[in-house]
Amino acid sequence: MSTQPIQSLLTIARVAAEAGEVPIAASIVAANGEVIASFHNEVEQRRDATAHAELLAIQMACRKLGRKYLEEYTLYVTLEPCAMCAQAAAHAKIGKIIYGAYDPKGGGVEHGARVFAQATCHHTPEIIGGVMEAECGALLRAFFKEKRT
Amino acid sequence: MSTQPIQSLLTIARVAAEAGEVPIAASIVAANGEVIASFHNEVEQRRDATAHAELLAIQMACRKLGRKYLEEYTLYVTLEPCAMCAQAAAHAKIGKIIYGAYDPKGGGVEHGARVFAQATCHHTPEIIGGVMEAECGALLRAFFKEKRT
Repeated sequence: MSTQPIQSLLTIARVAAEAGEVPIAASIVAANGEVIASFHNEVEQRRDATAHAELLAIQMACRKLGRKYLEEYTLYVTLEPCAMCAQAAAHAKIGKIIYGAYDPKGGGVEHGARVFAQATCHHTPEIIGGVMEAECGALLRAFFKEKRT
Repeated sequence: MSTQPIQSLLTIARVAAEAGEVPIAASIVAANGEVIASFHNEVEQRRDATAHAELLAIQMACRKLGRKYLEEYTLYVTLEPCAMCAQAAAHAKIGKIIYGAYDPKGGGVEHGARVFAQATCHHTPEIIGGVMEAECGALLRAFFKEKRT
């Protein structure tokens, strides 16, 4: 597994932080490595609390590819997805999710709603968490520390 | 509590069914009764598995009102929201959710991920389910029965 997509997302997440957005970034990547869509959080810019990077990336990938299911694609994201984004990935039948930092407070994969662990969940991607966890987590902690001061 | 918004949504959901969309409709309504945004599912039309009526209505309401939180607004929807839409409502701090049919298979409020019952859920709207349950459920059952034949 290459960590390169997460490294690229860290660069995008840093741009988000400079724009006042929580520094989280996500991309949809094809099996051949082609990046179909990349977004950072746009909650502040769009004034829309649902404008998470993962959801925007999934929606854009569907639009660009003209298909509602993304079985052969991987969702890369710097933070464990929340329940909204995890369920969005289930709806889109995302093949694989590779994410950076764990999120005990807001995550919905390993924490909280544990979307994919529900008996009613109709699609469970392959999931790899904790990739470049230290870097992804440090960026978020630095952002919130600066906001508090 | 008025059932009028759900009655209006049933009309919109019927239009969805005619267009081949799963007949679910949702609206964001202000305290004075003004309808800010109404959508039916647009999964087929957009080729986007995340294009649920509730999510589209929340996103449009944020865009129209220019605000990311909708504390004083009610989300009306003909079916129990899934985990994606329930968590979207939590992110947007929706004041109240009033929904029609219960959804043991795909719901994320009373079933499955039970988003608002999680200790990590940061916002729980007032929730009223089962409003015009029979009519909302019958429309969905008729749609799927016709699809199977």
